[in-house]
Amino acid sequence: MARIVQKYGGTSVGDIERIKKVAERIKAARDEGNELVVVVSARSGVTNELIARAKAIHEHPSEREMDMLLATGEQETIALTAIALHALAVQAVSYTGAQAGIFTDAAHTKAKIKTINARPIERDLKAGKVVIVAGFQGINEEGQITTLGRGGSDLTAIALAAALQADKCEVYTDVDGVYTADPRVVRDARKLAEISYDEMLELASSGSKVMQSRSVEFAKKYNVVFEVRSSFNHNPGTLVKEEVSYMEQVVVRGVAVDKDQAKVVISNIPDIPGTAAKVFRALADANIIVDMIVQNIGRHGVANLTFTVPQGDSHRAQKALEPVFAEWGGGEVAIDDRIAKLSVVGVGMKTHSGVAATLFQTLANLGVNIELISTSEIKISVVIESARADEAARAAHAAYGLEKAG
Amino acid sequence: MARIVQKYGGTSVGDIERIKKVAERIKAARDEGNELVVVVSARSGVTNELIARAKAIHEHPSEREMDMLLATGEQETIALTAIALHALAVQAVSYTGAQAGIFTDAAHTKAKIKTINARPIERDLKAGKVVIVAGFQGINEEGQITTLGRGGSDLTAIALAAALQADKCEVYTDVDGVYTADPRVVRDARKLAEISYDEMLELASSGSKVMQSRSVEFAKKYNVVFEVRSSFNHNPGTLVKEEVSYMEQVVVRGVAVDKDQAKVVISNIPDIPGTAAKVFRALADANIIVDMIVQNIGRHGVANLTFTVPQGDSHRAQKALEPVFAEWGGGEVAIDDRIAKLSVVGVGMKTHSGVAATLFQTLANLGVNIELISTSEIKISVVIESARADEAARAAHAAYGLEKAG
Repeated sequence: MARIVQKYGGTSVGDIERIKKVAERIKAARDEGNELVVVVSARSGVTNELIARAKAIHEHPSEREMDMLLATGEQETIALTAIALHALAVQAVSYTGAQAGIFTDAAHTKAKIKTINARPIERDLKAGKVVIVAGFQGINEEGQITTLGRGGSDLTAIALAAALQADKCEVYTDVDGVYTADPRVVRDARKLAEISYDEMLELASSGSKVMQSRSVEFAKKYNVVFEVRSSFNHNPGTLVKEEVSYMEQVVVRGVAVDKDQAKVVISNIPDIPGTAAKVFRALADANIIVDMIVQNIGRHGVANLTFTVPQGDSHRAQKALEPVFAEWGGGEVAIDDRIAKLSVVGVGMKTHSGVAATLFQTLANLGVNIELISTSEIKISVVIESARADEAARAAHAAYGLEKAG
Repeated sequence: MARIVQKYGGTSVGDIERIKKVAERIKAARDEGNELVVVVSARSGVTNELIARAKAIHEHPSEREMDMLLATGEQETIALTAIALHALAVQAVSYTGAQAGIFTDAAHTKAKIKTINARPIERDLKAGKVVIVAGFQGINEEGQITTLGRGGSDLTAIALAAALQADKCEVYTDVDGVYTADPRVVRDARKLAEISYDEMLELASSGSKVMQSRSVEFAKKYNVVFEVRSSFNHNPGTLVKEEVSYMEQVVVRGVAVDKDQAKVVISNIPDIPGTAAKVFRALADANIIVDMIVQNIGRHGVANLTFTVPQGDSHRAQKALEPVFAEWGGGEVAIDDRIAKLSVVGVGMKTHSGVAATLFQTLANLGVNIELISTSEIKISVVIESARADEAARAAHAAYGLEKAG
């Protein structure tokens, strides 16, 4: 008997028929004698419908009220999933985030989990019930409903797996694992049997849509081993864990493209200590996540600063900087949305030379201009023209021989 | 400055445009300097959609899970209504039933309000906010979401008006008050300016769809004066209160038809003390509300018992009686759905003779057979053939001269 946390995303519970299929999968795991805690998302499309209704009323709806509104999506799914299990004669009970004891900070729409009181779930597991938990949501100290932001349901699952000391955590999605590249872009992309947290993190932050970074970070922090797999078939998925067996042999593990980035260039700002601190403090206060950063010292005591942000945040970033510019009496912002970030990821690359050179040569051969470069221990990212990103990804995938099993 | 509790039903908040209109109405009352607590229902149709989804999965979905599911309907509306008020620059905050401190017993789908902790709402009212509360829902001692059953949102409003010692309670619906009869059936039906709790109660229990009895009972118990009015116009509504000014003059106040009744005839049961008690205990344990009851003592020591129940409960009633019959070794049930209850209501009738005779004569003139009769201090009800009920209502309305102002 194992204690398993499963998570099913929006497409996996997209309609009544899908919910019934998910219930059958849960029942199969339960019938093997396992304890099951199941985290579900809102049915796909529901969250967007709710957002559309709110936006039809108010351009900038209150974040507290958006949490109140969006939390209904998962609440509907947990009840329907529990009912579907009852229809299969499986004992099951649904929990909202609040009922599951998921306490968060007060940052509406982007709350962070602070603690989990797992006692109520433990009690129902002991009573032989499958516990269905609403993903994406929690409750703050004042009893307000909060939501965890993008990828919040994955985070709920991994946090519950940690709190409940689960033996396994299975994240069901509409892809059956982590690939060496997006199979829709790179035809001969290959599914990986295992990947390390760090590689997964770099892939996530590089635009691989399988999971959000924060969930992987959380898993790494609490050493939660999880498997990414598909709810639409029974193929084995990709196991995400601390150490992976092939670590010594393989240099590059995957290629990722992120088109949801905008390049922000700030010019004519004072070239004095504290300039960058002020800029990024203002962006942090506006809850904007900045990715690649390059600073060029200009002439005549003025500097340029270039960085990337998620496309949806670029104009908010511009606004957040206005008071800083006013203080300095100068500063200009230029935003370029037509860029993409191409990343090459692999734990092996830190002890191998030539990985960066291969990437730059590949892009040069294609005549693709590199606008920004940033590197970490296990990743090289370049910002290039968005229109040529897929082509560049295919060329890089081939250059590293990723189509061959590692 | 007055403290006002307003309640808007499902059609009043049926879509985005209607929600905006409701927000304008709330703002108008707020701009007059009033404190506002607003109870809203689910958008019309939403509850039925949710029920349909659950039934597509399971014929008899768990009541706990149905409460979890249906509570999302009101939760969506409170958030959208608060957002609509923000769009009009009115400070507003939404509350689920649990957040509003509405504590109920544990009877899922039919919970009763036990206490209300009004402190959180009082605090937000003092802070100048309009408080939007999800109708129909509460929380039990174990922290489970419960719903109050039919007409639950009216009950929420009246209970809050009592707990908050509101100066006024306004129940907005899609009709603009209480009429002497259903205007769709009786053309010259007249809107009443005032009606007493008792009359309203008898009308409600007689199938007038304006409000459920339990809400009126609650209002009577806590002496909450409320006004039934339309959210689609600005006409004055009907004031419901303990004493009404015309009480001495007027005999009959209204005629109501309830077609949602089924007649249940039980025959061949022992004619011994305790028979009826056993039957109605079994029905009460199944949470079935029995209306009119007539017992006939038959021959040879066996009795017949006839009563009416809501149509949706008739087969459940039959099932609930099976163990009782098994114990007796006898008993048969016949159900007739093609009946309607016609009622004539008025506080004045208790001191006037001839009211019953007028009704019976009117029916006799039409050739309509009376199957059951029951009377109270302020009501006479008859069960007749459903197909002729509207015609009978029109005739009774005319016979009592209800088209003329009282």
